[in-house]
Amino acid sequence: MLTKVTAVLTVAGSDSSGGAGIQADLRTFAAHGCYGTTVVTALTAQNTIGVQAVHGSPPDFVIRSVLDDIDVRTIKTGMLFSAEITQAVASTLREYIDADVDTRGRVPVVCDPVCVSTSGHVLLQPDAVDMLIQELFPLACVITPNQAEAELLLKHRSLPCPQHLLSLGPAAVFLKGGHVNVSQEEMRELQIPEGITLDIRPAFLLEEHMEILSKHAKMARVADLVVDVLCQRGVKTITLYPRPRLQSNSTHGTGCTLSAALACALGNGTSVEDATAQATLYTYLGIETAPPIGKGYGPLNHLHSISRLVVQPRTDGHPYPLTHKFIQSTVDLWKSYVQHDFVVQLGKGTLDRASFIHFIKQDYHYLKYYSRAYALLATKSHDFAPISSAAKVMQHIADEKTMHVSYCAQFGITLEELETTPESPATMAYGAFLIDVGLQGDTTKLLVALAACLLGYGEVGLWLEKEAAKPDAWVKREGNPYREWMEDYAGEAYQGAVSVGLETIEARAAADPPSPVRYAEWLAVWERCVRLEKQFWDMGMNLS
Amino acid sequence: MLTKVTAVLTVAGSDSSGGAGIQADLRTFAAHGCYGTTVVTALTAQNTIGVQAVHGSPPDFVIRSVLDDIDVRTIKTGMLFSAEITQAVASTLREYIDADVDTRGRVPVVCDPVCVSTSGHVLLQPDAVDMLIQELFPLACVITPNQAEAELLLKHRSLPCPQHLLSLGPAAVFLKGGHVNVSQEEMRELQIPEGITLDIRPAFLLEEHMEILSKHAKMARVADLVVDVLCQRGVKTITLYPRPRLQSNSTHGTGCTLSAALACALGNGTSVEDATAQATLYTYLGIETAPPIGKGYGPLNHLHSISRLVVQPRTDGHPYPLTHKFIQSTVDLWKSYVQHDFVVQLGKGTLDRASFIHFIKQDYHYLKYYSRAYALLATKSHDFAPISSAAKVMQHIADEKTMHVSYCAQFGITLEELETTPESPATMAYGAFLIDVGLQGDTTKLLVALAACLLGYGEVGLWLEKEAAKPDAWVKREGNPYREWMEDYAGEAYQGAVSVGLETIEARAAADPPSPVRYAEWLAVWERCVRLEKQFWDMGMNLS
Repeated sequence: MLTKVTAVLTVAGSDSSGGAGIQADLRTFAAHGCYGTTVVTALTAQNTIGVQAVHGSPPDFVIRSVLDDIDVRTIKTGMLFSAEITQAVASTLREYIDADVDTRGRVPVVCDPVCVSTSGHVLLQPDAVDMLIQELFPLACVITPNQAEAELLLKHRSLPCPQHLLSLGPAAVFLKGGHVNVSQEEMRELQIPEGITLDIRPAFLLEEHMEILSKHAKMARVADLVVDVLCQRGVKTITLYPRPRLQSNSTHGTGCTLSAALACALGNGTSVEDATAQATLYTYLGIETAPPIGKGYGPLNHLHSISRLVVQPRTDGHPYPLTHKFIQSTVDLWKSYVQHDFVVQLGKGTLDRASFIHFIKQDYHYLKYYSRAYALLATKSHDFAPISSAAKVMQHIADEKTMHVSYCAQFGITLEELETTPESPATMAYGAFLIDVGLQGDTTKLLVALAACLLGYGEVGLWLEKEAAKPDAWVKREGNPYREWMEDYAGEAYQGAVSVGLETIEARAAADPPSPVRYAEWLAVWERCVRLEKQFWDMGMNLS
Repeated sequence: MLTKVTAVLTVAGSDSSGGAGIQADLRTFAAHGCYGTTVVTALTAQNTIGVQAVHGSPPDFVIRSVLDDIDVRTIKTGMLFSAEITQAVASTLREYIDADVDTRGRVPVVCDPVCVSTSGHVLLQPDAVDMLIQELFPLACVITPNQAEAELLLKHRSLPCPQHLLSLGPAAVFLKGGHVNVSQEEMRELQIPEGITLDIRPAFLLEEHMEILSKHAKMARVADLVVDVLCQRGVKTITLYPRPRLQSNSTHGTGCTLSAALACALGNGTSVEDATAQATLYTYLGIETAPPIGKGYGPLNHLHSISRLVVQPRTDGHPYPLTHKFIQSTVDLWKSYVQHDFVVQLGKGTLDRASFIHFIKQDYHYLKYYSRAYALLATKSHDFAPISSAAKVMQHIADEKTMHVSYCAQFGITLEELETTPESPATMAYGAFLIDVGLQGDTTKLLVALAACLLGYGEVGLWLEKEAAKPDAWVKREGNPYREWMEDYAGEAYQGAVSVGLETIEARAAADPPSPVRYAEWLAVWERCVRLEKQFWDMGMNLS
């Protein structure tokens, strides 16, 4: 179970079209496995075409409501709209976070200085810019202006170039390059200020030692780059993040998404350099994989990095979700196996002696396959624990075999006769299928194949035991020639093996959750084996 | 790539603490792979302890902004707060959706009649109840009241029992049972009205044929049940959804979550009966798996049904994300292999003749292992396409072998000498490792093991070709005794195999995305093989 989750706060506008603002933030938080709380600074009526209306809303009280209750690990601010809102946000945050620049990492604040929408709508009133710089930047771990915002901020303070944004108070400036084209050549011939080193972190750019990827992707070499730049106070290294320029209309909310992803990474304790790399990659893929939505500039695909699980999580209340799902998905077949007429007659004690003898002779052969399948499982394992566990099962089967021999002796059959009885087609089909699955797939697939027999006989044992305990039970113990057989499968030794089997298969599925394709393969193997089990009883009844 | 995504609209309040309202809705939509748009009816300041303030906001203009632009497939309404807002929502929705009860499924509206918060705060003003019933219920595909809301609605219209809620206009009523305890006995002895049949759909309740799960989960039998009830207009079947009652404080936003999940399922074309079953299951697991957040009633875990992908999606721009990641994750080792001194000297034509002879004799042995590994791959496959593909590679290797034999003849080595040369430890280690991986794992794991050789030699061929084409190239073609070898690996036949190999492995990873555990296994195999390749060149240089 989840015992901890990183809580994040966004202080931003609400975008009705869902592509930007707190909506983009919440989707980004979800994709990063973070829990999002929200303070809405302004309601906007907007869609992929433009912004139709904005209504500001005083947020200080709401910030307190969140921060007094929830242990927020990181905060991002987006659209703050007015000077009044900006001041309220800054002064409230100051109460909660440590604004000392050296320890600012404790609850990092990512400040996205949203000024103007992609469609040209003013999202920060002119008199709010000063407030943003004065009040909020000194609290920020990193600010994330794009080119236009950087220019506006510099002009506002008559500063000459982007590095000077650091002098406005933030611990780092992440300058987004989305609006500027840089060629591969310009990138190569970059002028580096004295005393500064460059750290270049390319993404999606094929390097010299990836000739096979360039050749077979059949792509033109990337000409235009987007380059983001990270400068940090007191750090002599400037980090560059070049990547190919994308041609896409799915760019609504790009800045919100980036700053939200950055907040998640910082909240999880990632360094600023790595967090910006991760956030840039996430945003890039969001644009590249976006399906068209709306008539204008559509939203990013925030969900490219997640997939839906096929098997529900293991919980204390429901520790066997995989087995439960297997049984539910094949319920009629499963019942036709574990409540087969052979089992019913065996429980009543009325089962034809010849049927039982035929069954038990074939089961003797089957157990050899079954034991070999466990040996194959051990062969395929590379830790001592599963090897030892397989060896235990093989030993358990050897013991079960002893039961067969003694049973057969009771029914007048010698060991020699057991060994020389020809295998029925049902036995060969099932036995060879186990070996085949073991050869084809990984150990989990083989465990699934082995489970139908292990669990099914456990079910038969428990069911007969339960029915026998009822008043006027149809299951007879006294005088039942098959009593020993029944009680063995309900007994501690066999049920111990069932318990280990359940735990093993469920732990595997929880640690290494199957994709839908992989789950479908498992289910097909399970269903095949349950059917082969049912056919095994059929064979017993028909003496075939 | 995603070419289509289901867009959903929620018309509801904003919950700053993130557990309910549009925040819960957006998280639920994301978990279902749906795209969420939002119309905020009211801003609340709230946390896990209670609601501190509510500000209403007229939403009709915002609804139009969304619905004019985005093709929304389903709509849910939550907290509507005032009569004014309720009327505005209803009359705007009426313009966009088909209110005819028979075709209402086209853009289904799920109406969650939110009246009072868990903490007792009024979320729907008294004069708004009539508006809700009159204006919105007739548009609803399903309404989802809890016990208290149902009572309030019935009292309002002096109706005797829940089925009568259908008379208020919705096509279906889903009555949530979360606030009522039902015992297993009461469930069994349920009074059924004449002419009605019951469809009971239990979840998380172990049935008669699941004795092994009951026994080994070591749980007390469930005593108290929660039972949700679905009644549909014109349908004579009532559907019951019983499940165990959970003891949990993580219940803030349960109703929002359920109605949002229901909207997603309906938007994807699921029937009302199945959609309610799915939504109930999703919500239940959200409560059961929730980590503690906040000081009071915390939010559900909306993300229990998703996991994060390890390998980024395949896109047109980046068709080989798995291989790219493999190379990036082992970049120094990869370079020490594909740009090994052996390769450099070979390109210059200065490689010691004895080294090349030693290498090529060992490579002859290696290719037998490699061919056998492809045979094993075919053995493990169960479609003709991969079997045929493996056969082609085996044939290709047989051709490569011919090259070896003719090469060796040039260097004065006979076929007999090739066959009788003892294998070096480096050859045996690598060859036997391939067979071992093939025996241990599934076909994808074996393909990963085979990729290091296939792709690496392709890389060597292309790199030498590229370097040879440069002015003043260090790679010499003229008079280079190894020219034929170099050109073979850059040639069409070999690069064709590289192309198929890349496509196969990337298609596998895309169709069956690996969990982190599985990816780590693949990467370990890749890294081992790249190292074994490097050691193979080392062996050539050292004549070991």
